[in-house]
Amino acid sequence: MDKITPVILCGGSGTRLWPRSRAAAPKPFLQLVGDRTLFQETLARCSGHAWFTGPIVVTGRAHVALVEAQLPGDEDSQVIVEPQGRNTAAAIALAALRLPEDAVMLICPSDHHIADGEAFCEVALKAAALAAEGWLVAFGIEPDGPETGYGYIKRGPWIEGAAAAGFRVERFVEKPDRARAESFLAEGGYSWNGGIFAFRAGTFLDELTRHRPALAEAVRTAVAGGREEGREFHPDENAFARIVSESVDYAVMEHTERAAMVPAMIGWSDIGTWSAVRAARDRDGAGNSVRGPAELLDCRDVMVDSDGPRISVVGLSDVIVVVDGGEVLVTNGAGSASVGKLKGASGE
Amino acid sequence: MDKITPVILCGGSGTRLWPRSRAAAPKPFLQLVGDRTLFQETLARCSGHAWFTGPIVVTGRAHVALVEAQLPGDEDSQVIVEPQGRNTAAAIALAALRLPEDAVMLICPSDHHIADGEAFCEVALKAAALAAEGWLVAFGIEPDGPETGYGYIKRGPWIEGAAAAGFRVERFVEKPDRARAESFLAEGGYSWNGGIFAFRAGTFLDELTRHRPALAEAVRTAVAGGREEGREFHPDENAFARIVSESVDYAVMEHTERAAMVPAMIGWSDIGTWSAVRAARDRDGAGNSVRGPAELLDCRDVMVDSDGPRISVVGLSDVIVVVDGGEVLVTNGAGSASVGKLKGASGE
Repeated sequence: MDKITPVILCGGSGTRLWPRSRAAAPKPFLQLVGDRTLFQETLARCSGHAWFTGPIVVTGRAHVALVEAQLPGDEDSQVIVEPQGRNTAAAIALAALRLPEDAVMLICPSDHHIADGEAFCEVALKAAALAAEGWLVAFGIEPDGPETGYGYIKRGPWIEGAAAAGFRVERFVEKPDRARAESFLAEGGYSWNGGIFAFRAGTFLDELTRHRPALAEAVRTAVAGGREEGREFHPDENAFARIVSESVDYAVMEHTERAAMVPAMIGWSDIGTWSAVRAARDRDGAGNSVRGPAELLDCRDVMVDSDGPRISVVGLSDVIVVVDGGEVLVTNGAGSASVGKLKGASGE
Repeated sequence: MDKITPVILCGGSGTRLWPRSRAAAPKPFLQLVGDRTLFQETLARCSGHAWFTGPIVVTGRAHVALVEAQLPGDEDSQVIVEPQGRNTAAAIALAALRLPEDAVMLICPSDHHIADGEAFCEVALKAAALAAEGWLVAFGIEPDGPETGYGYIKRGPWIEGAAAAGFRVERFVEKPDRARAESFLAEGGYSWNGGIFAFRAGTFLDELTRHRPALAEAVRTAVAGGREEGREFHPDENAFARIVSESVDYAVMEHTERAAMVPAMIGWSDIGTWSAVRAARDRDGAGNSVRGPAELLDCRDVMVDSDGPRISVVGLSDVIVVVDGGEVLVTNGAGSASVGKLKGASGE
């Protein structure tokens, strides 16, 4: 079988995991679950099998030092350094242009947690087989609730053929409101779009050129004028600045005739809120989870996480306390979705 | 009318207001409500009327510096410094022995909050009038719930006579369990024993001598061998060490035939828990109360209090967050009663 090249997208920065996540310590580089960072988890998930090549990491200037520090020093890896963020369509195109046409890329965001690494690999193999046949394949995450924070994928008919391992995509749906999300779950056939894809490099570039010719051309120019520095590749800065910022969903997936999806029950979480972090962490019999110095008395479903000061909690249920860099955040499962609205989270 | 000498008891230290209260900063010296410490509140409550003399403050060695710093410098005040804590019977006897026999003492704990200072003065006048006639008078705090943390006073018949302003005490009841406390409220005629008393000095010493002759004698010896230093009086250390530690309730009030009580609706709170602090503080329309740098989003009945770090709370109801000296406490109304059980609160 063909090898799979992991393309690890390592950019952006959110505010919903404030005060832990900040500009200087963005989400992929935090040990949010277990003792590895989400970026290290992603690397580990895409290695350890002979059919994975070394990864291509696409990141921004601000994060290169963190990437280099956490990326093993093997020669088989490559780091593409974007002069600025231009969203996922451009990031994936950069990687595709650095690969042979028939290479199969596995696009992996590095700010997600996947509990079941083995299942991930199985799904990746199925997706890669479809990608090798010219499909643009999305992982379809099995929904466990009417989430309004993700895009949805409505699946179409089963794909007949040798590599048969998935469905055609009937359509991609942008983040729905609550009522629509509920109707999706009631209707069935919908999964979450977790932003994990498998593409043949050539197919991706063909489809990008078909649907976003200017974007594709701008990325080509940026790559043609780029320079290598060790394992780093730096696209041409001026050309890159002219690239339009679009997501791969919007630029390609929603338009291509060749969109497919493979169902992925892989224990996926986007770790988008402190509530999601709590759910992904080990918890004791009372549902409590502790990092850093802490004492919990008569508590249930309490998560505390401190970078130093002791946190003492008495008599509470469903509370999340995070102490970091002199900031104290106290919220609960429902409230954690609004943490990004805090002044502190926006740097005030 | 006779003058009233405030006797302000300023000792002890609790753990239930940890992490704010510590050995070095005990409760009376904290600004828990408003912008004065509880000790300063107590002083203010017992001044400003011509019928109050300057106060006698009874305190321990560890707290003298704090007392001297917060006690105005007028000549009319006295500080009795106990070599160690010996509970309220001894503390009151010390003050009584430093006063003429017919002086009326108003015994005031300095770790309580009283919202209605004017009502307090009115009750103090009634109590003093009864005390001048030889009654040992307790303030009977109107209960607003079946509290199990206080002693109760069952009132007896109305006292007939010129100074008629209260009731005989039928009996004092030590801290009851919940069921008994509820039965007291159902039955009526019970009030809380807030530890505020009015005594004629001579009467108190007579009753103490009658019911606790050894204790009375030991205090007399300690005073006889004591020394003055400016406005401070230091009882003899060796004699003091031999005094038995007993509360005034246990040593005198529960035994005397001359116990009386005056109903006191004075907005009293012993500020015994963070929940009580919250109740006594000003709150906004959503029931929230903030001290120190903080941001509250979608919160109700949340109290935050920080000595420095910003506290951000999202989406919570009935939560109390206190940050002090590098410790972070998170609890709620019910949990605040158990704060003293934390390792941190006991100094670990």
